[in-house]
Amino acid sequence: MSKQAVLDSLDANRQANFDRLLEFLRFETISAQSQHRGDMQACADWLVRLFTTAGVLARAGNDDARTTVLVYGHYDVQPVGDEKLWQSPPFEPTIRDGRIVARGAADDKGQIFTHVVATLAWINAARTLPVRVIFLIEGEEEIGSPNLGTFVQRHADELACDYVVLSDTAKLDADTPALTVSTRGLLYKQLTIAGPSKDLHSGLYGGAVGNPLNTLAKILASLVDKKGRVTIPGFYDNVQTPDVHQREALARIAPNDDNMANALGCPALAGEEGYTTIERIGVRPSLDVNGIIGGYTGEGSSTIIPARASAKVSMRLVEGQQPDAISQAFDKAVAAACPPSVRLSIETSAACEAYATRADTPGAQAALAAMAAAYDAQPALLYEGATLPILPLFRRVLRADSLMMGYCMRDCNAHSPNEFFHVSDFEAGCRASALFLAELADRVR
Amino acid sequence: MSKQAVLDSLDANRQANFDRLLEFLRFETISAQSQHRGDMQACADWLVRLFTTAGVLARAGNDDARTTVLVYGHYDVQPVGDEKLWQSPPFEPTIRDGRIVARGAADDKGQIFTHVVATLAWINAARTLPVRVIFLIEGEEEIGSPNLGTFVQRHADELACDYVVLSDTAKLDADTPALTVSTRGLLYKQLTIAGPSKDLHSGLYGGAVGNPLNTLAKILASLVDKKGRVTIPGFYDNVQTPDVHQREALARIAPNDDNMANALGCPALAGEEGYTTIERIGVRPSLDVNGIIGGYTGEGSSTIIPARASAKVSMRLVEGQQPDAISQAFDKAVAAACPPSVRLSIETSAACEAYATRADTPGAQAALAAMAAAYDAQPALLYEGATLPILPLFRRVLRADSLMMGYCMRDCNAHSPNEFFHVSDFEAGCRASALFLAELADRVR
Repeated sequence: MSKQAVLDSLDANRQANFDRLLEFLRFETISAQSQHRGDMQACADWLVRLFTTAGVLARAGNDDARTTVLVYGHYDVQPVGDEKLWQSPPFEPTIRDGRIVARGAADDKGQIFTHVVATLAWINAARTLPVRVIFLIEGEEEIGSPNLGTFVQRHADELACDYVVLSDTAKLDADTPALTVSTRGLLYKQLTIAGPSKDLHSGLYGGAVGNPLNTLAKILASLVDKKGRVTIPGFYDNVQTPDVHQREALARIAPNDDNMANALGCPALAGEEGYTTIERIGVRPSLDVNGIIGGYTGEGSSTIIPARASAKVSMRLVEGQQPDAISQAFDKAVAAACPPSVRLSIETSAACEAYATRADTPGAQAALAAMAAAYDAQPALLYEGATLPILPLFRRVLRADSLMMGYCMRDCNAHSPNEFFHVSDFEAGCRASALFLAELADRVR
Repeated sequence: MSKQAVLDSLDANRQANFDRLLEFLRFETISAQSQHRGDMQACADWLVRLFTTAGVLARAGNDDARTTVLVYGHYDVQPVGDEKLWQSPPFEPTIRDGRIVARGAADDKGQIFTHVVATLAWINAARTLPVRVIFLIEGEEEIGSPNLGTFVQRHADELACDYVVLSDTAKLDADTPALTVSTRGLLYKQLTIAGPSKDLHSGLYGGAVGNPLNTLAKILASLVDKKGRVTIPGFYDNVQTPDVHQREALARIAPNDDNMANALGCPALAGEEGYTTIERIGVRPSLDVNGIIGGYTGEGSSTIIPARASAKVSMRLVEGQQPDAISQAFDKAVAAACPPSVRLSIETSAACEAYATRADTPGAQAALAAMAAAYDAQPALLYEGATLPILPLFRRVLRADSLMMGYCMRDCNAHSPNEFFHVSDFEAGCRASALFLAELADRVR
């Protein structure tokens, strides 16, 4: 293996690699906005050209190697939001204080590009790849990957791999790269409560008619008890209480509660009794009301009993919780809490299971070793509270574990104005991604 | 007394009185819309001219009589709403199926005009009035009478009276005029719950941060128990349970629950355990959530913990409940139900006590006798669920009870398109209003 040659090549081509990243960032690949369809296609073409110019196809590598890694990422980005809040135009990448500021700088163009650069460096400098590498870079992640599941299922044979690697998560802090070992699942529900056929005068009928808003409040309040535990029967049935080792691991990455509350602007944090903040986010399920609307919500007052009320409720699920079973239990609990004076309807708009992997697999060890060498720092293990629906998909269809190597800062303004990625993280990420391929080849044969 | 001469005069001048009503209805007196300021003034001038042409001032009557009645009403009307829903233009009164259809036909131009016509008939036909009559017809009722309190206080001496009479309530049914003997009070609150300083990602923080919407649901749910009773400490302290006689009286005017549920489009009625529908509306207090808004309420789903949530909540109060005391108890109960992880603020936007009078006062007996004779039917006693803030005002400042003589149908579309007043009710109302003055003179000396 010529690891050093590859690292030297990365060093020698710093400016070229960096310029190429900026080129990547200039494409206005906002998947949610149809006027950018042309930009999406141009960016996809540009990526394909990058690989073919280097003399490879997007599926590249040492055909003799039996070990295969699938690099997943996305070239689409979030809408820019209020452009006035950006200090520089979102699609004109600008360097400020060592940061590349642009929409997609971290999520996910900048991070996926470390793997692109690393793979091309292997091909250019070593004329080989330590393992077979397949790139799967989609343009629909920010709109929920509506076609990815079908695509992966249809091309399961071509996409067969030992591990999936992705860089769409963050570091622990400025100095510490991280391997994310779990993500929570998601179950999203929309409730509608219908009462009288039109809004009623609360004087003429108040006290004698089931009020959809009072009822909605009752139902929602019944779902979480005073101790912050979800009351849906069976909700915790297969949820493991974290053991001593896991709690210790979580404690090492725990934020300071007071600092976190201050940063978020909350008077205090709150959650399930008996668990720390990091445990509540990382390994415990939760239930949040995401929206409620009903009745008169304008200025001043209006004395009505509303005809209807609706709410959006989501649950983050952890390992062991089956979305289908929880979904049914939720519907049953809500129906049981609903009195006969109103009509209830429930819709499920998302259901995705949690994902958890171990840090002692050969793949995880390879990722940790690569990040440790590239950053000269012990990487952290992160338990992610958010949901990555692709991970259960890859495990189910490809039977492959996913390795989430995080290079960007947590507060990188993903989805917000002034998104950024440190130049030094881009370079360390390129090194880590390059070393990972060698480390993986060493461990998986 | 020349009662019969007055009734004969009403008969002889049917068409003229009716035409005058239509003239009154043509003024576009929408107090909520400033472009109608000219119409408001024109209508007020027209009313004043009506009295002065008849040779009286708006304070008219037999100066020797010691008994005085203050006739209260309003010449302003609700906005017309969607004009397309009107079968004829709202300010071009049209007769259809024996109904005068126009904005204000019932609420309140048509009903107050019965007292105007009756008083002028006494003056014209009998050259005297059985009692002194003061007219107080305002133009701001539909916008909450912002100046009436001050006006009544400033002119308390001039407005001194034995009874207030008003016709701004309804009959029981087509054949049965009614005297309304109570109205509920109103306490209106606006709650705001603030959590994090901006919306948070429910994946990254769900389970560890106080969610304003979950909290709001908990607080609102805690205010009413499973038996439909308000849980605010002290809420029922001075509330009288209806006695056998009152329950019998209420049962006589009770709707059929199934019919009412069907008419309203509710699967079933609901309310405080141990009370009938008519009791729940007429003599029991209630608490309704009138509006909630918070978080993401658009199409599809968004996984946020909202920065804030707010609700509008109103209580209908009954005799014995002091709005100030209930208001303080409400604030205390809500604060006690609110955890330290969010910030709570409460605003009071209305506070008005209930009003109740007796049916055996000389004034009530006069009103009942007058309606019985005019309609040739036994009048009903009604317990109104809605709120008329002027009644406690008149009682407090003028120390006078109010007599609510109702001539219009309950389903007269007040505040809705195609508001109407039966021609026959206008005529019977004029007779009842005329007879009332004589009946009152007979009973109060």
